[in-house]
Amino acid sequence: MEFIVNAVGRKIPKYIEGVGETKPYIGPFETKPEGRKYLPNKSYNTPYDNKVLSNIREAIDAVGLKDGMTISFHHHLRDGDYILNTVVDEIAKMGIKNITICASSLNKAHEPLIEHVKNGVITGIQSSGLRGKLAKEISTKNILGNPVIFRTHGGRVRAIEAGDVRIDVAFLGASSCDKMGNMNGVNGKSAFGAIGYAMVDAEYADKVVAITDNIVEYPLYPISISQSLVDYVVVMDEIGDTSLISTGATRVTNNPLEIKIAENAAKVLIDSGYVKNGFSFQAGSGGSSLAVVKFIKEYMKENKIIGSFASGGINSYLVNMLEEGLFKALFDTQTFDCESSSSLKRNPNHIEMSASMYANPHNKGCVAHQLDIMVLSATEVDINFNINVMTGSTGVIMGAQGGHPDTAAGAKLTVVVAPLMRKRIPIIVDSVTTVVTPGETVDVVVTERGIAVNPRRTDIIEKLSESNLPIMTIEELKKLAERFTGIPEKPEFDEEIVGIVEYRDGTVMDVIRQVKQK
Amino acid sequence: MEFIVNAVGRKIPKYIEGVGETKPYIGPFETKPEGRKYLPNKSYNTPYDNKVLSNIREAIDAVGLKDGMTISFHHHLRDGDYILNTVVDEIAKMGIKNITICASSLNKAHEPLIEHVKNGVITGIQSSGLRGKLAKEISTKNILGNPVIFRTHGGRVRAIEAGDVRIDVAFLGASSCDKMGNMNGVNGKSAFGAIGYAMVDAEYADKVVAITDNIVEYPLYPISISQSLVDYVVVMDEIGDTSLISTGATRVTNNPLEIKIAENAAKVLIDSGYVKNGFSFQAGSGGSSLAVVKFIKEYMKENKIIGSFASGGINSYLVNMLEEGLFKALFDTQTFDCESSSSLKRNPNHIEMSASMYANPHNKGCVAHQLDIMVLSATEVDINFNINVMTGSTGVIMGAQGGHPDTAAGAKLTVVVAPLMRKRIPIIVDSVTTVVTPGETVDVVVTERGIAVNPRRTDIIEKLSESNLPIMTIEELKKLAERFTGIPEKPEFDEEIVGIVEYRDGTVMDVIRQVKQK
Repeated sequence: MEFIVNAVGRKIPKYIEGVGETKPYIGPFETKPEGRKYLPNKSYNTPYDNKVLSNIREAIDAVGLKDGMTISFHHHLRDGDYILNTVVDEIAKMGIKNITICASSLNKAHEPLIEHVKNGVITGIQSSGLRGKLAKEISTKNILGNPVIFRTHGGRVRAIEAGDVRIDVAFLGASSCDKMGNMNGVNGKSAFGAIGYAMVDAEYADKVVAITDNIVEYPLYPISISQSLVDYVVVMDEIGDTSLISTGATRVTNNPLEIKIAENAAKVLIDSGYVKNGFSFQAGSGGSSLAVVKFIKEYMKENKIIGSFASGGINSYLVNMLEEGLFKALFDTQTFDCESSSSLKRNPNHIEMSASMYANPHNKGCVAHQLDIMVLSATEVDINFNINVMTGSTGVIMGAQGGHPDTAAGAKLTVVVAPLMRKRIPIIVDSVTTVVTPGETVDVVVTERGIAVNPRRTDIIEKLSESNLPIMTIEELKKLAERFTGIPEKPEFDEEIVGIVEYRDGTVMDVIRQVKQK
Repeated sequence: MEFIVNAVGRKIPKYIEGVGETKPYIGPFETKPEGRKYLPNKSYNTPYDNKVLSNIREAIDAVGLKDGMTISFHHHLRDGDYILNTVVDEIAKMGIKNITICASSLNKAHEPLIEHVKNGVITGIQSSGLRGKLAKEISTKNILGNPVIFRTHGGRVRAIEAGDVRIDVAFLGASSCDKMGNMNGVNGKSAFGAIGYAMVDAEYADKVVAITDNIVEYPLYPISISQSLVDYVVVMDEIGDTSLISTGATRVTNNPLEIKIAENAAKVLIDSGYVKNGFSFQAGSGGSSLAVVKFIKEYMKENKIIGSFASGGINSYLVNMLEEGLFKALFDTQTFDCESSSSLKRNPNHIEMSASMYANPHNKGCVAHQLDIMVLSATEVDINFNINVMTGSTGVIMGAQGGHPDTAAGAKLTVVVAPLMRKRIPIIVDSVTTVVTPGETVDVVVTERGIAVNPRRTDIIEKLSESNLPIMTIEELKKLAERFTGIPEKPEFDEEIVGIVEYRDGTVMDVIRQVKQK
């Protein structure tokens, strides 16, 4: 096998079976797109069309789904999603095989896929991430037989637009839909908020099936995805359990360790001078993130600072800040709780955006590139500031790229928050198991006991030099952790590649290999 | 020259110089699209991009405009538009030649184009219509030297999506825009309402320049066209004079002739059984149209009828009906007055739509195909129910296709209203000078003295048979007119083709020849 070493020092096979030729990662903005986009099929419509079908099977028949095709899903219903399993079960019943799933992400709800993978119904998976048993079976047993392609939220749009993946049929859940296929996620009993990830599927898939449990009188409004993109409409009893959407990200932690990390991070943001009138902000999920927001909120109120926008996955904490006037607008590609979903409907400055507008590096300007501050979590950080959020300490896949690399590359100040150790496993290591976000795009790593600034950012080092924060080098931070944990054993891997971590621009950041069975 | 006779009996050259091979019109839904769409150039963006330029010249430089390119404009500012002339003047000053203009329509405001056509700056025009001196110079002197391609509103989107026309640079006026190019037409001093015609340009043009007189703090909301589609932003003092947008279509006529026509038309609609709960409705412009709406409104109120939606160019009369609850929603691709523009901002059920969603026959479902009733005007009607709205009795171009053929094909009941004669010229003729809308898609022709139903619509003939309306054959209607007018002289034409009337599906409906100079 021939390899090439990419810009984060990973050996990337020049050719990967089931995937093809690879392009190595060479830097966050170095790989520019060439040529023209991939072209969606032309369509045709008459006044006599009837789009409404009785059930999923009729839709699968109508779109002509057959062996070898690629189908897509969005994950706005997260752990409460019923659609993916229902569709794939039906496909399996119909005897269709060799299907590739291109999902915006896969969650624990999708564990039933294991059987379909084992039976050869599903032979390809492309997703932001993988969790739970399905991830474990793929990591340790390579049940899929082909590498999972992991893409960032922005990278998925780029890939679809570039034709790297060609979606034959998109099955898109909508909490409200009319007979012509106008869709939104804000009305109805299963309201999930923004439907930003699904917009590119609607635009590029050869066939688009809207699936709803709330068909309303024509025309639906507001319209998030237009009838002009939808082939069929199917009504099912329930598209999901919305009580399982919430990531729990709307309650501020009371874990003292997480609060300490958040406090440190907030100080870094403030002392770096980024929290000022007109600043823009996003925080990822994870225990400390919301606590950072809480501290920043207090600082903003005390100092009468009004921010420009907050973006990302939107939770009710951010909605409250919007409604208190602390931010002028929210950009929402995915909504994390029911209160926020109702805000999206109610507040004109709570703006729904497509995943392309959010994070696509190959359009004419994405919101992630307008961010001043991004707060992100990490599973591992290495001494080159590379971040892993995909694989755990055992080497098993357990996470998702999400918007991590997109926002890290886009924000003027990217701060990663993490505890120094988890269950006596140090977080700061010589080399992360899997590189997801390149160190070049990470500015500061904040733990409860120490803070390391990327040496590239001499401006921040300068600004923080007079603070009372525990600033140290990343190597010192690593040693600090190892004083408590010792140097942990590394997981061992077989040669087999079970996952490809694709950077947002389509280059390969890293590969994930099958975990050696002991 | 080789010809083929199309389905409305017109001799269409198989090849037209400056245009290429032609496809003849074969029926409203007979020509299906083949293959995949044309798609735009891939783009690229970084956090360091600055889109804001100081003036139009900088934008023309930045996009690399050069000889032979195609540029596009929208006509939402109608007769008040300053953008097209400003841009083309600048192009001329820079010595760039041989430019094709692809505009959603051209209005009287664009007469200064005459000089640029004569000087070879503009050598191609594609538009919904042409009016005034520019139209006359082209019709009588062929100053352009190439045929103008006339497209319907839906057909223009289709053509752009199919790559029949490839837009190098779109210059898009916005009444509000932020530094990243998020745009709308509802905020700011030059608010013009919906920006529906411009959406396809933003999506497909290689380069997109937003031009505004109201740059606002980032982010703008609501966003009608996303920053992800915009390359540059230019601020100019005034993008237009919004007092010239209004077509005057919001005052009901007090011309007794027009009122009589409207009364007859309203009776036809009602007696045909189409005015009932949940019906959908659109009326074109023209003297009688709004009067028809007035009569229908009265009938709806008396009979407690609630319609589904009204669509099209939206005026304040329709907004009032929306706000009175007579229609549940409005679909708006172009707003005809300031009151309606403010409604678009205020009323969630006043829905902005793209021209694709409005009328594109080659997407997955357009609103025009959901219409129950369409009321349209006509310059000429022939005994095959073919309609002319492009050329006058002298053979000179003086109108626009607009959504005429789109809605006629889409609506379940298409009623054409026209006076029996204008200035002693009969409207009903043996054969229209120019076929714009094929008779196959026209159901009833209503004049002040007689009404003719298309023999294809036996159901309507049946329904109207017991009414006291002056129903007659179209031939009888023609004779009735000729009793007053005599048989008029026909204009004479040279061989030179100055315009091509393209049907919405890309086939050729008719050609317009140079008017013979006497």
